[in-house]
Amino acid sequence: MKPESRLYQLRERLHEIIFEADTPEGKAFDVALIAAILTSVLVVMLESVPEIHDRWGGLLYAVEWLFTVLFTVEYLLRLYSVRLPWKYATSFFGIVDLLSILPTYLSLFVAGTQSLLVIRALRLLRVFRIFRLVKYSRAGLVIMQAMRSSRPKILVFFIFVVLLVTIIGAVMYLVEGGEEGSQFTSIPRSVYWAIVTLTTVGYGDITPITPLGQFLSAIVMILGYSVIAVPTGIVTAELFQARRTNTQACRYCAREGHDDDAVFCKYCGARLNE
Amino acid sequence: MKPESRLYQLRERLHEIIFEADTPEGKAFDVALIAAILTSVLVVMLESVPEIHDRWGGLLYAVEWLFTVLFTVEYLLRLYSVRLPWKYATSFFGIVDLLSILPTYLSLFVAGTQSLLVIRALRLLRVFRIFRLVKYSRAGLVIMQAMRSSRPKILVFFIFVVLLVTIIGAVMYLVEGGEEGSQFTSIPRSVYWAIVTLTTVGYGDITPITPLGQFLSAIVMILGYSVIAVPTGIVTAELFQARRTNTQACRYCAREGHDDDAVFCKYCGARLNE
Amino acid sequence: MKPESRLYQLRERLHEIIFEADTPEGKAFDVALIAAILTSVLVVMLESVPEIHDRWGGLLYAVEWLFTVLFTVEYLLRLYSVRLPWKYATSFFGIVDLLSILPTYLSLFVAGTQSLLVIRALRLLRVFRIFRLVKYSRAGLVIMQAMRSSRPKILVFFIFVVLLVTIIGAVMYLVEGGEEGSQFTSIPRSVYWAIVTLTTVGYGDITPITPLGQFLSAIVMILGYSVIAVPTGIVTAELFQARRTNTQACRYCAREGHDDDAVFCKYCGARLNE
Amino acid sequence: MKPESRLYQLRERLHEIIFEADTPEGKAFDVALIAAILTSVLVVMLESVPEIHDRWGGLLYAVEWLFTVLFTVEYLLRLYSVRLPWKYATSFFGIVDLLSILPTYLSLFVAGTQSLLVIRALRLLRVFRIFRLVKYSRAGLVIMQAMRSSRPKILVFFIFVVLLVTIIGAVMYLVEGGEEGSQFTSIPRSVYWAIVTLTTVGYGDITPITPLGQFLSAIVMILGYSVIAVPTGIVTAELFQARRTNTQACRYCAREGHDDDAVFCKYCGARLNE
Repeated sequence: MKPESRLYQLRERLHEIIFEADTPEGKAFDVALIAAILTSVLVVMLESVPEIHDRWGGLLYAVEWLFTVLFTVEYLLRLYSVRLPWKYATSFFGIVDLLSILPTYLSLFVAGTQSLLVIRALRLLRVFRIFRLVKYSRAGLVIMQAMRSSRPKILVFFIFVVLLVTIIGAVMYLVEGGEEGSQFTSIPRSVYWAIVTLTTVGYGDITPITPLGQFLSAIVMILGYSVIAVPTGIVTAELFQARRTNTQACRYCAREGHDDDAVFCKYCGARLNE
Repeated sequence: MKPESRLYQLRERLHEIIFEADTPEGKAFDVALIAAILTSVLVVMLESVPEIHDRWGGLLYAVEWLFTVLFTVEYLLRLYSVRLPWKYATSFFGIVDLLSILPTYLSLFVAGTQSLLVIRALRLLRVFRIFRLVKYSRAGLVIMQAMRSSRPKILVFFIFVVLLVTIIGAVMYLVEGGEEGSQFTSIPRSVYWAIVTLTTVGYGDITPITPLGQFLSAIVMILGYSVIAVPTGIVTAELFQARRTNTQACRYCAREGHDDDAVFCKYCGARLNE
Repeated sequence: MKPESRLYQLRERLHEIIFEADTPEGKAFDVALIAAILTSVLVVMLESVPEIHDRWGGLLYAVEWLFTVLFTVEYLLRLYSVRLPWKYATSFFGIVDLLSILPTYLSLFVAGTQSLLVIRALRLLRVFRIFRLVKYSRAGLVIMQAMRSSRPKILVFFIFVVLLVTIIGAVMYLVEGGEEGSQFTSIPRSVYWAIVTLTTVGYGDITPITPLGQFLSAIVMILGYSVIAVPTGIVTAELFQARRTNTQACRYCAREGHDDDAVFCKYCGARLNE
Repeated sequence: MKPESRLYQLRERLHEIIFEADTPEGKAFDVALIAAILTSVLVVMLESVPEIHDRWGGLLYAVEWLFTVLFTVEYLLRLYSVRLPWKYATSFFGIVDLLSILPTYLSLFVAGTQSLLVIRALRLLRVFRIFRLVKYSRAGLVIMQAMRSSRPKILVFFIFVVLLVTIIGAVMYLVEGGEEGSQFTSIPRSVYWAIVTLTTVGYGDITPITPLGQFLSAIVMILGYSVIAVPTGIVTAELFQARRTNTQACRYCAREGHDDDAVFCKYCGARLNE
C-alpha cells in the first residue's frame, strides 16, 4: 500500500468522524464538540462577572485558551479533511468556526475582545444536523421560508418605521426639548425614545414631563398599535401560506391542498405519490 | 352480607363522591373542595403580606394546617377508593394533589417552603371537569392542540432566541461595559437586558447610556419586532388550522384530524361519513 | 282636538327629536347632545387637574352642575316620550344615561365621586347611530362577533394565566423575598410583578435583583412570548372566520364564499340575491 | 428655431432630469438628491446634540442654509418644468418638498423651528420610485391596501380604546388619587397612565402604589391582552385577504380585486381571463 493511499484513507476517516454523525466515533465526536462549545460559552460568560473573575480569573483564562487551542486544531483538521477546503471556509459554518477562535488571539493585541467568543454559541446550530432532528429542521425551514418571502414587506415596513420615528423624535424634541429637567436633550435621543415607545419596550429612562408631551406620546402609543400589528400580520399570513405550499396534486382528481401526512387524496380517495 | 363486601361498597361509594360529580353528594363534595382550595390559596397569599402576618399570623398558620390535614385525609381517601392507586398517584392530578400538601410538612424542617402551597391553585383545574364545562373544555383542547402541533416550531424559535440574546448581550457588554455608571456589568446581566428588551418587557432597570449603546438598542428593538411576530404567527396559523379540522374519526382506521371538506380518509382512503 | 291627543302628539314629536335623527330638529338635537357630552367630560377631566382647579374651580363646578341639570331634564324627557319607559331605563343606553347624572348628586353626600362623571363618555357611543355610520357600525359588529365567539377560548386562557401568575409569583417570592432591598415583599406583590412581566408592560417598579431571580424572570419572559401569541391567534382566527361568514350561496351553482360587495357569482357568473 | 421652442425644450429636458429616472442624467440627479436629503437630515439631527452644536454649530448652520437654498432652487425648477405646476404643488410630494425648505426661513422669525426640517426625511420615499423597486413598491401597496380596508375596523377600535382609557383613568384617579406620594394627580395624567399600560409600553413613570390600585392595574393589563389582539387580528385578516386577491382587471367593467379562484367578475358577471 502506498503512503499516499494511507494518507487518503486517513483523510477519509477524519472526514467521517468530524463531518458525519453516522458512525459511533462520529457521534461521540459531535457530542463531545457540543459539550465543549457549551462549556466554553459558559466560561466566557462567567469570566465577565466581576466577582467570579476576581476569584477564578486565572483558571477561567487558562480554560479559555485550552478551548481556543482545541477549536483551532479542530478547524485545521476540518480544512485538511474536507475535499473542497475553500468551500467549507466560506460556508456559514466555516466562517462561524473561524470567528469562534479569532477573538482569543486578537485579545493578545486588543483588550476586551474575549467577549466576542460568545459567537461560539452559533456553532450549536450544528445540533440540528447532528441529532438528525428532521422534524425540528423542517420547522426551522418553514419559519425561514416565511421570513424570506415576507422580507420585501418587512423591509418596506422598516423604512416606514425609520421615517416615522425620525419625524416623531423631532416633534417631541421641539415640544419637550426646552423644558427644565427634560430628557429630550437632542433629536437622536428623541428618536431613541420614539423607537423605545413605538416598539412598546418602554424603559422609562426618557419620559415626557409636559402635558403636551404626554398627550403626543399617548397618540404615538395608540397609533403604534396598528404599527405593531403589521409585521405580525405579514409573518402570520406568510406562515399560513407556507403551511399550504406542499400542495401535491392528486393524480386522479388533480385537486391540491393535501396535508403533509396525507397518504390518500381526501377528495377522491386515490393513493398519493410518495 | 360479608364485611369485605360492605368495605367494597364503601369504597365504591367513596369513589363516586370523591371522583364523580353525578350524584348530589359528589357535586356537594366538589363544590366544597373548590371553596376549600380557593380559601387555602388565599390564606397562603395573605400570610406572606408582612402587615397581615404580624397581626393574624397565628390564626392563618392554624388555618393553613387545618387545610393541609383536610387535604391529606382527602388524598389518602382518593388513594384508598380508586381502583388503581398507583395510576392515580402518578397522574397529573395525583402529583398536584400530593404537592399541595407536602410543603406544609416540609416547612417543619425547612423554613419558607409554605409559599409553595400556592401550587394548590393547580387543583382548581378540576373545575372544568366538575361543572361539565364542555364548551370550555373543548376551547381548552383546541388551544392545547394548537400549542402541541406548534411545539417543534416554537422550540426552534426558542433556540434561535437564546443564541440571539447571548450574542446581543455580549456585544452590548463590549460596547457599554467599560463606561462609568453603566449597568452592563457582566455578560449574563447583558443577556438578561437583551431578553427584557427583545420581549418588549422593558423594565428600565438596565438601560444603555452611551449614544452607540442606544443606537444598537434601537436596532435590537426594531429587529425584535419581526421576532415577536414569529410565535404569534405560528400559534395563529395552528389555531386557524385546528378550527378547520373536525373531530370525526375514520370508520376503518379510527384516525382523526380530517379537514372539513374531506370526503375520504387521508390515512387509509376509506370514505368518511357525511 | 282633545287635550290628551295634543299631549300624545307632543310626546310623539319629542320622541322624534330625542330618539330619531331623521328630521332637521332631531339631527340638531343630536349634534348639540354630542357637543354637550364632549364638553362635560372635558370639564370633569380639567377639574381634576390641581392647577386648573385652584384657578377655575368655581366656574367648572357651576358648569358641571349645569350639564347635570340639562342631562337630568333630557333623561326625564326620554322616559316621558318613549313608549316603554321601563325597557329604555333598563337598556344599555338607559343605564348609561342614568349613571351619567347620578355622581353629581352623589357628590353632595360623598366627596370625590365627580370623577365617575367620565362615564358620560360612554354616551358618545350614540355617535354611530346618529350619523348613520353604517360602515363603521358593521365593522364594530364584526369585531363584537369575533370577540363573542372567541369568549370561551379567551376565558380558558384567562384562568390559565391567573393560575400561572399565582405560581410564578410564589416562586419569585421564595427566591427574591428574603433578599436585602428586594421589592418582592409578599406573594400578592409578586403576583402583580408576574402580571406586569407576562403582559410585557414592564413598569420596572419591581425588578429582580439576584442572579437567580433574573434568570427565572428571563424564563418567564421567553415563555410569556407564546402566551402572548395565544389570544392574538384566537382573535385573528375568529376575525378571519367572521369575514367569511356572510356566505350567501349562489342560486345556480350553490357555491358559497362570495365577498360582501359581490353582485355576481364568481364561479358561474349568475346574479346573486340582494 | 424660436426662442420659445428652445425654452420649451429646456423645460422638457429639465422635467426629464428632475422627474424621471430613465436617462443617465436623471438617474445621477436622483442619486445626488437622495444623498443630499440624507446628509441634510443628518445635519439637522446632529445640530440638536448640545456637544456637537457647541463645537460645530457655525459649520452645521451654514450647511443647513446651503441645503435649504439648493432644495429651494430644486423646488422652483420643479414648479417651472412641470406641465401642471398647481397639481404638483398640491400633490403629496409637492407639499413635502415645500415643507422641507420652509422651516429654515421660518427660523429667522421663530427660534427652534429648524427641528421641523427632519420632515425632509419624507422626501426619501422617492427612493422607491427612483430605483424602480417594483417588488418593494408592490409589497408597500399590499400593506397600504390592507391598512386602508381595515381602516373602519381600526377606527371603531380606536374610539373604543379612547372611551376605555378615559373610564379606566378616572377610576384609577379615584382609587389612587388621594394617596400620599401617588403619581395619579389628575384624570388626564391617569388617562395617560392607562394608555401607557394598555399599550404595554409601561414606562414606569406612573405606577400604582396601593394594593387596590395594583389589583385594578393587573386587571387592566390582563384585559388589555385581548385588546392588543384585536388590531393585530384585523390587519392579519386583511393582509391574508389581500394575498388571495389578484390584480387582474375585468375586461368589461375594469374593476379589480378578484379572488384567485374567481372565474367570473363579481361586479358585472363577465368571464375573466384565464
